[in-house]
Amino acid sequence: MFVSASRVSRLFVSPRGSLLRLMSSSHHVMPTVDGPSRAETDSFGEIQVPADKYWGAQTARSLYHFAIGGDSERMPIPVIHAMATLKKACARVNAAKFGMDGAVASAIEKAADEVISGKLDSHFPLKIWQTGSGTQTNMNVNEVISNRAIEMMGGQMGSKKPVHPNDHVNRSQSSNDTFPTAMSIAVGIETTQTLLPALEKLQAALDAKAKLWVDIIKIGRTHTQDATPMTLGQEFSGYAQQVAYGILRVKQSISRVCELAIGGTAVGTGLNTYRGYDEYVAAEVSKLTGLSFTAAPNKFEALAAHDAMVELSGALNVLAVSLNKIANDIRFLGSGPRCGLGELSLPENEPGSSIMPGKVNPTQCEALTMVCAQVMGNHVAVTIGGAQGHFELNVFKPLMVSNVLRSIRLIADASVSFVDHCVDGIEANTETLKKIVRESLMLVTALNPHIGYDNAAKIAKNAHKKGITLRESALELGLVTAENFEKWVRPEDMLGPKDA
Amino acid sequence: MFVSASRVSRLFVSPRGSLLRLMSSSHHVMPTVDGPSRAETDSFGEIQVPADKYWGAQTARSLYHFAIGGDSERMPIPVIHAMATLKKACARVNAAKFGMDGAVASAIEKAADEVISGKLDSHFPLKIWQTGSGTQTNMNVNEVISNRAIEMMGGQMGSKKPVHPNDHVNRSQSSNDTFPTAMSIAVGIETTQTLLPALEKLQAALDAKAKLWVDIIKIGRTHTQDATPMTLGQEFSGYAQQVAYGILRVKQSISRVCELAIGGTAVGTGLNTYRGYDEYVAAEVSKLTGLSFTAAPNKFEALAAHDAMVELSGALNVLAVSLNKIANDIRFLGSGPRCGLGELSLPENEPGSSIMPGKVNPTQCEALTMVCAQVMGNHVAVTIGGAQGHFELNVFKPLMVSNVLRSIRLIADASVSFVDHCVDGIEANTETLKKIVRESLMLVTALNPHIGYDNAAKIAKNAHKKGITLRESALELGLVTAENFEKWVRPEDMLGPKDA
Amino acid sequence: MFVSASRVSRLFVSPRGSLLRLMSSSHHVMPTVDGPSRAETDSFGEIQVPADKYWGAQTARSLYHFAIGGDSERMPIPVIHAMATLKKACARVNAAKFGMDGAVASAIEKAADEVISGKLDSHFPLKIWQTGSGTQTNMNVNEVISNRAIEMMGGQMGSKKPVHPNDHVNRSQSSNDTFPTAMSIAVGIETTQTLLPALEKLQAALDAKAKLWVDIIKIGRTHTQDATPMTLGQEFSGYAQQVAYGILRVKQSISRVCELAIGGTAVGTGLNTYRGYDEYVAAEVSKLTGLSFTAAPNKFEALAAHDAMVELSGALNVLAVSLNKIANDIRFLGSGPRCGLGELSLPENEPGSSIMPGKVNPTQCEALTMVCAQVMGNHVAVTIGGAQGHFELNVFKPLMVSNVLRSIRLIADASVSFVDHCVDGIEANTETLKKIVRESLMLVTALNPHIGYDNAAKIAKNAHKKGITLRESALELGLVTAENFEKWVRPEDMLGPKDA
Amino acid sequence: MFVSASRVSRLFVSPRGSLLRLMSSSHHVMPTVDGPSRAETDSFGEIQVPADKYWGAQTARSLYHFAIGGDSERMPIPVIHAMATLKKACARVNAAKFGMDGAVASAIEKAADEVISGKLDSHFPLKIWQTGSGTQTNMNVNEVISNRAIEMMGGQMGSKKPVHPNDHVNRSQSSNDTFPTAMSIAVGIETTQTLLPALEKLQAALDAKAKLWVDIIKIGRTHTQDATPMTLGQEFSGYAQQVAYGILRVKQSISRVCELAIGGTAVGTGLNTYRGYDEYVAAEVSKLTGLSFTAAPNKFEALAAHDAMVELSGALNVLAVSLNKIANDIRFLGSGPRCGLGELSLPENEPGSSIMPGKVNPTQCEALTMVCAQVMGNHVAVTIGGAQGHFELNVFKPLMVSNVLRSIRLIADASVSFVDHCVDGIEANTETLKKIVRESLMLVTALNPHIGYDNAAKIAKNAHKKGITLRESALELGLVTAENFEKWVRPEDMLGPKDA
Repeated sequence: MFVSASRVSRLFVSPRGSLLRLMSSSHHVMPTVDGPSRAETDSFGEIQVPADKYWGAQTARSLYHFAIGGDSERMPIPVIHAMATLKKACARVNAAKFGMDGAVASAIEKAADEVISGKLDSHFPLKIWQTGSGTQTNMNVNEVISNRAIEMMGGQMGSKKPVHPNDHVNRSQSSNDTFPTAMSIAVGIETTQTLLPALEKLQAALDAKAKLWVDIIKIGRTHTQDATPMTLGQEFSGYAQQVAYGILRVKQSISRVCELAIGGTAVGTGLNTYRGYDEYVAAEVSKLTGLSFTAAPNKFEALAAHDAMVELSGALNVLAVSLNKIANDIRFLGSGPRCGLGELSLPENEPGSSIMPGKVNPTQCEALTMVCAQVMGNHVAVTIGGAQGHFELNVFKPLMVSNVLRSIRLIADASVSFVDHCVDGIEANTETLKKIVRESLMLVTALNPHIGYDNAAKIAKNAHKKGITLRESALELGLVTAENFEKWVRPEDMLGPKDA
Repeated sequence: MFVSASRVSRLFVSPRGSLLRLMSSSHHVMPTVDGPSRAETDSFGEIQVPADKYWGAQTARSLYHFAIGGDSERMPIPVIHAMATLKKACARVNAAKFGMDGAVASAIEKAADEVISGKLDSHFPLKIWQTGSGTQTNMNVNEVISNRAIEMMGGQMGSKKPVHPNDHVNRSQSSNDTFPTAMSIAVGIETTQTLLPALEKLQAALDAKAKLWVDIIKIGRTHTQDATPMTLGQEFSGYAQQVAYGILRVKQSISRVCELAIGGTAVGTGLNTYRGYDEYVAAEVSKLTGLSFTAAPNKFEALAAHDAMVELSGALNVLAVSLNKIANDIRFLGSGPRCGLGELSLPENEPGSSIMPGKVNPTQCEALTMVCAQVMGNHVAVTIGGAQGHFELNVFKPLMVSNVLRSIRLIADASVSFVDHCVDGIEANTETLKKIVRESLMLVTALNPHIGYDNAAKIAKNAHKKGITLRESALELGLVTAENFEKWVRPEDMLGPKDA
Repeated sequence: MFVSASRVSRLFVSPRGSLLRLMSSSHHVMPTVDGPSRAETDSFGEIQVPADKYWGAQTARSLYHFAIGGDSERMPIPVIHAMATLKKACARVNAAKFGMDGAVASAIEKAADEVISGKLDSHFPLKIWQTGSGTQTNMNVNEVISNRAIEMMGGQMGSKKPVHPNDHVNRSQSSNDTFPTAMSIAVGIETTQTLLPALEKLQAALDAKAKLWVDIIKIGRTHTQDATPMTLGQEFSGYAQQVAYGILRVKQSISRVCELAIGGTAVGTGLNTYRGYDEYVAAEVSKLTGLSFTAAPNKFEALAAHDAMVELSGALNVLAVSLNKIANDIRFLGSGPRCGLGELSLPENEPGSSIMPGKVNPTQCEALTMVCAQVMGNHVAVTIGGAQGHFELNVFKPLMVSNVLRSIRLIADASVSFVDHCVDGIEANTETLKKIVRESLMLVTALNPHIGYDNAAKIAKNAHKKGITLRESALELGLVTAENFEKWVRPEDMLGPKDA
Repeated sequence: MFVSASRVSRLFVSPRGSLLRLMSSSHHVMPTVDGPSRAETDSFGEIQVPADKYWGAQTARSLYHFAIGGDSERMPIPVIHAMATLKKACARVNAAKFGMDGAVASAIEKAADEVISGKLDSHFPLKIWQTGSGTQTNMNVNEVISNRAIEMMGGQMGSKKPVHPNDHVNRSQSSNDTFPTAMSIAVGIETTQTLLPALEKLQAALDAKAKLWVDIIKIGRTHTQDATPMTLGQEFSGYAQQVAYGILRVKQSISRVCELAIGGTAVGTGLNTYRGYDEYVAAEVSKLTGLSFTAAPNKFEALAAHDAMVELSGALNVLAVSLNKIANDIRFLGSGPRCGLGELSLPENEPGSSIMPGKVNPTQCEALTMVCAQVMGNHVAVTIGGAQGHFELNVFKPLMVSNVLRSIRLIADASVSFVDHCVDGIEANTETLKKIVRESLMLVTALNPHIGYDNAAKIAKNAHKKGITLRESALELGLVTAENFEKWVRPEDMLGPKDA
């Protein structure tokens, strides 16, 4: 039978004395469950949950109170898996060091493993848009692990015995330290396992092109206008360098992300936990994940602010800036096929148009630049959330972690896609590249050291005005001899500094 | 049997003459389909698709080439339904006015109806992160409608007969005009059916509180510091006004969003369509949706830019600003229960803490302010996407529409949740409110017109310094008589301008 | 002689009883003035100000306490002039309707006129970065007007007689309503007098090109790739449309900006003012400025939020988006001179390079796109400031107005510069445009209605592969006769919809 | 006599053949100079400049073509000084290593020293909004140094003899490498000399409070609601930690900013310079500034992208996030004096209100949080500019550097102001703090380990409901004995983890 929370009498004395009915019952008629259900309870009373789900009362309440957005607004699964990893680590530490019953701890570990494996993903239905501390997701994990552990131990789900969601699964923890810890773990894992390999693949692909095309001379362009020559390899080496630095930026940021809030409990003091608990848990999480997590040196900072997330988001923002530039360049260099710059040929992966037959478009560049815009927007959301912590707790945690995880995943996947379906397959249109260099007027720059800037300018302007070549112009103006022109104006000699 | 696109010989002559192999075959080994499949073709060749899906070759290619992000990154369903609505409208206009075969048009309409109804949602698997024109989603809809229509007419799926995805479903259309048209339709519908009702509900709820509390006097606060008195109703009337203006802003923006690009085809000229086609389709879409859509007066602008989306996103951004302020105020006014401002009691919906028993938190305010931060971030993404259109086409379309739709849904749902689970249940702590006003020093402002600013300041500073009441201070300093103090300093007379 | 505020004994009783020394004297040794000075006083005591400046004690204190940024961080002058306009209007209304002494009012008016004229600009040294209510700028204006009026009336500066900065110049006002009112007036004036004429000039310049080039056929480009043909006039008509809509957006936003907060005084109630005062002042301000200002219907909203500023900033953000796209297109269309698209020739205003002789760059496009990026950034600052109002007052006012005014000025000036030094002087490279169209493969689209999409695609792909023309390809494949090709594929017939 | 550039015949052959008049003369009537003038020339012809200014023709042209914004829009002076530092370094290297005439080099050095000293600041009138490469500012510096050096050597200004602005002052340089180098130098210096000392001062001030208040017990607040106790020192230790990490972030970012682009010349190849030139110059700049600059390892990246600026801007963005949180907390903790939280007393620096006598406001917090919003906005501008580089050159350089320098200066100055006029003078209201802790219900958390979460919740809820103390509630419910209550619930024992 369904017993709504609203039946519980709730006439409170207000903070400073007045007698108030805190809520009208009309807001709190909890929905009944279709199909088989079971009763779960929390400090607000009893509530029904679907019989085939492991979650408990607080998850059920959150589902009801936060019907914001569709399925795509769920708390990202990496956070759930990270939280279960933390629960496992805490159970181990609690058993090994602080007297938790071994059987209980072992059941928590096993249940946590099932969560980590992904097989219980459907038991975590809560939205990003819930309490800003992520308390409800912490309780969702506590409840699922508790019930699954109870089940394993032959108990009755919902009884909280022998494994209580708060007193056991959450022992020596608070949402206020577990959720930011799960944020750190999830972001640490995704960065290491998803983002960095993708960026390294992209860096390698760009670097390979830089090396392959080291001798292909082309016109440089500044202000989108013709400039002095360079090689296509040099151009791509700049892209490769951008990504290399991007990797470095991520690596530098991640160390602070990996400082765990665990051990701070409710407000950072570590009330109800033990000295050393934080470091034991950090060590255990490191062991479980194979990554290097540490205990945050100041837990007040670790709960009340998530500056490290803003910092990492800033590193992702730089990557978005870099990739936007690279993808933009590549689509313009590949523009055409007959009315554009036409220096590169991009892989043709699919028909480009539903109306223009035979059209092929730089679609990988488009997906990537859209991703970049999204990441820049996500960064602003993270920034705004990060700036608004109040007192001992920042309550924009789910917002922040969901945006950082989304940015990580999008950059990673789009980078891999960009390599596989674009960069690797790009071909240099060597004839076109050669022809363009020959036509350029900016080879005139090579004359500066010999005849001075002002005379060189006269040659270029005369050539431009009359539609003639530089050589013709130089000879016509009598500023250079034919012999010297041949000697001085050689694209292949314009690709680097001179020897002194 | 699976035939990869890469088998097709593709040795192209480069734009300016060189002979190139445009792609190495290694990038283009399309994955085989597990389970029963059927061959579909496009101008790139043949490809296998799952037998139980209606999509065709171009959808299959996109799925393979754009594996970016998980399920939550799918093209929003409102875009799919809007696109089907457009296909239906076009089929009707093509049949009624421009000679399309009636049976074909009728089959297209029926298939489109199924898409609109939602029963074919699983046939639209493509990601936001695809070609920036949305071409692949346009083709996904063309392919599903074509195959479903073929099926209805007894033909063979994949045969493109008697209903061809391009020549019939996409007739007189291009992705370049259909996708922005679908953007307009989707956003128009979501704004009208989801956002505006939610905002009106919120405005009404705040207005009801403003009226209910019209006589409850409280201290005003400026700079977060004590200021002159006002009523709680006045305070909430400001919130209600913010939302009322927010509604107005959305309504003003939506008219330009509802100008349809259809009829522009590939570059805005309307090639391969007919004079009047745009207006016929706009009228038909209006009829089908019950909303007021018009033909965009300049199709070049309508394809190459989506300024109207940026504008609407700006209106959503103002709403985020407003709601962030309102929710922030409410959580601070409700802070406590014993160590905060304690003027309001917010509904207690769920246990607030996994470690602090009995704690209740302003979780609806938190969900709402997180949504606001997301909407502000989305706005930046939309802005950056909108700023980067090139030549005749903006290729950030899926990015833009997905962010606008997400912002709409989040604001709408969070507003409804905020009303149902917070605003409606807020109670005024009248005793606390009364007590606070009595303690305030800022009632001194009422003395300005009688004794001047400088003397009034002396009274306030003396009271503050000595910890005494204003009245005591005024009498002690001999600046006001007791009688005048009683007459002049009355909170209930400080709530509005005087009669002249 | 300099008397520091710190000499005043300030031992206060704390809010809830403790005895505190609120500040150590060490923080408050006010700097002495170099050169001749005069004593000014406020409720904190006496302070010296330079003898040749009209400002008073509160300005002096702000100068000392807010040494943030250099000269470029001053409160924008339009705010000062607007504030003086308001002071003049209030003096008139106070004298005409509410019993202010006529001579005092008249002196205030005259002093205000001098401020409005700009001749006292050097008397307003305060920074944007001061109190978030703009109180110090309000007092700066009150003090300067008071002292100048005193001087005119033969009194002694600093005596506050016969014209008191608070009791007369600020009568029936509070910074909390005057500063937002000055924001409205300043932004209203700058929008009307600076921004809209500049945008109209730009719209007209683009429209003139659209008309001039109505018959010049060129290749369209989508995805930066070759597409179907259009005219250069059509392309520019899209730009002109964007700006036309931009003007409309600004006009729609400005009406809410022009609702004046005046009459709300400290918290929005209008304490110490008179019924009707707000409307009298709004009418007077309208008369003085020639613009249409109204009294804000809800003063609580008008003080506590500046959503209308966020809205207008959003309209400026759309303009930034539009202008970024237009300027980007123009620089790419003008890229070259020999290795780019070369469709347009942009005016050559200055040498382009300190090393490449003869180089000319699209510098106006660069200045404009940099301005666009700044305006988008400013919009985020305005958004964040707007979202953080607390209770009865938003204290990000100077931030908000300074960013909005900066965006207005930058867009206006950059638009005028763009017209004068770029748009008006752009020339179409007609030969190049013609040649490019002829080479394009996308004319094949014209064949769709005759031979179907799939056959048309075959022709295009064959031509691309073999480096031959479309006509050659069509005939080779036997899909179209020579006669039909001539009849069907005509760029000049591809510029619009067909007659039905 | 004034000779406008437009008199020079400019009939050019268009890129692909057409004959065009590139500009109508009407756009190019250069303004005449009021007062004494002198002729200067560049490759566009002759132009008059004021006789008392050292600048030359290109500066004059830029002044005319870029009249965008008022005086506050000038290129930041740190960029000018940095550019002069670079010119000095280059002259030294050119003379010492690459054969520049010693007398010329020496004159360049002396003129550069005058620029660096600030005495020639009025000779650099150009706006941020100019060519996006900063070419015009590079030329402004070249021209001023050239003319001043010519003057020193007894030559005729404008003659370019014996010191030519391009051939000597700009020798082996291009705007494309000098301007980004000047960006690096300016930002490196401002970061080191202005920002870091200010942040260290702030960190020290917060840390001092953390230590001073190490034993003052207060209520913690999470979700803005009462939570478990902590000390005021703990709270401030979190703030100090945030700033400490902020310092670290800036230091990590600055190393990449200090990689100099010099030696890349026009497109990154280093054309017209010498092998080793880049490293010599970097060493010389390091010597001149006392900071550690290096030669960028990849010059293509260094010209085409400014990711390091985006990265540093991201570090500033994190600081803005941190400082916003800290300042917000402090103003709320100091809210009152009678109707707020009242835990802290902030220094009273100035009268707070023009209408409410005696009011004092947290104005330093307001200035600081406004600065934070500006920095977050600036970061978006930098991001957008950084994302839009094209090919070999990012042309948003002046935008980027001006925003980064503004953010640095604003954070630095506002931090110093915040320390001097707020943090240092904050007093703890000890009586209030004590009283609040006693009233709190969240001390109940101490009971969890003894009686379990659910029983503890019952006690808290019962106390809240009945308006009684926790102790009364615990005893009434019979869940704890009086003795145990006294032993278990002690705020002073709730400030950290237990010993195991």
